[in-house]
Amino acid sequence: MLFRQLFDEESSTYTYLIADRTLKQALLVDPVLEQVARDRQLLDELGLTLKYCLETHIHADHITGTGKLREMTGCCLIVPENAQVSCADRFLKHQEVLQLGSVTIEAIATPGHTDSHAAYLINQKAILTGDALFIRGCGRTDFQSGDAGTLYDSVTQRLFTLPDETLVYPGHDYKGHTVSTIGEEKQYNPRFFGRDRTQFIMFMNNLNLPDPKKMNEAVPANQNCGKI
Amino acid sequence: MLFRQLFDEESSTYTYLIADRTLKQALLVDPVLEQVARDRQLLDELGLTLKYCLETHIHADHITGTGKLREMTGCCLIVPENAQVSCADRFLKHQEVLQLGSVTIEAIATPGHTDSHAAYLINQKAILTGDALFIRGCGRTDFQSGDAGTLYDSVTQRLFTLPDETLVYPGHDYKGHTVSTIGEEKQYNPRFFGRDRTQFIMFMNNLNLPDPKKMNEAVPANQNCGKI
Repeated sequence: MLFRQLFDEESSTYTYLIADRTLKQALLVDPVLEQVARDRQLLDELGLTLKYCLETHIHADHITGTGKLREMTGCCLIVPENAQVSCADRFLKHQEVLQLGSVTIEAIATPGHTDSHAAYLINQKAILTGDALFIRGCGRTDFQSGDAGTLYDSVTQRLFTLPDETLVYPGHDYKGHTVSTIGEEKQYNPRFFGRDRTQFIMFMNNLNLPDPKKMNEAVPANQNCGKI
Repeated sequence: MLFRQLFDEESSTYTYLIADRTLKQALLVDPVLEQVARDRQLLDELGLTLKYCLETHIHADHITGTGKLREMTGCCLIVPENAQVSCADRFLKHQEVLQLGSVTIEAIATPGHTDSHAAYLINQKAILTGDALFIRGCGRTDFQSGDAGTLYDSVTQRLFTLPDETLVYPGHDYKGHTVSTIGEEKQYNPRFFGRDRTQFIMFMNNLNLPDPKKMNEAVPANQNCGKI
């Protein structure tokens, strides 16, 4: 397997490139519109055909590159079940498995940041956690049908139950971390450690964060596969 | 081995944390002053003792965190041979090997960006290239006794001669890349591919880049292990 973590500095978004080296087939998770040229060039240089673009959820902070990449490459656009993205080619249910040659990608439904959200478990060794779980943090739950209690259940029942050594690759990072493990997050994530469900809900409901700058533009664009 | 890539957004610097998991001993390469608290917290959470802080070179764009980390932890401060850092504890020659438990770190002298510079080869599988080689780029050569011809020789004779599959972890990235390989850089690095030594020197000597913002402050501070 080839695995590349890519970063968009403006939105602090991580995009993931995963490929089967033998088949030379690739997928991208959460590509960013402004980085499509970079991602396309990297695919070309590595001699990879883009088979799939996956979203963990409908983003509010950046516009997806999936629609543009589909236009360029003919890739299949995949979103979590129930995501309001009518232009998607395929919807993945909880525990549904996508195969990319020898690489196994299992969707783990992890709603709460938004009402439709999937984390992707790669070869049972690494999990792309989107905005459900960050390194020592988590996604906010105060818009787009987010719900703190639902996020608590997703993280504690579906992510923290994975083996401790599972690598955690988040959808964003704001402090310069690139990777963690489930064991580390169980022990040191301050959003969850030492807080029960009620305390977590109270904490999340009192964050009083400003709306993301691009929210009013990004959400409708992302429901339309990135077309503005 | 435990390996963590860490990023400082202001200076686009990568810091590397490497540890022997059994001995619980760690080293940091190119830590940034403003990130010392983050790095220290991560070491503590992972239960690691900081044995060494290594510099690839005297930086001009950020102030090193090594001096502060040495004060906090008593770690040994290591720089490349001939680096003008009188407060360093140890100087590594070309091909000198540092052992951290089961992890082997070989210094590869790679001057050119500055007149004293080392890349660090980790277990013969990954190379931390500092500012000698970036992903699809390289460090500038127009100050601090930099020399384009010397950099060309370092990269082509000492880095591009490593096995193609060697992972390349740079000292900076400005486009959101995290890792590459020697094979990829030989084939796609636009600074080197298709340019001979004379053409490279001409190209580098005509970049006309502005000085780094922190240069006048950073260079003397870094010669003093980060003390301003």
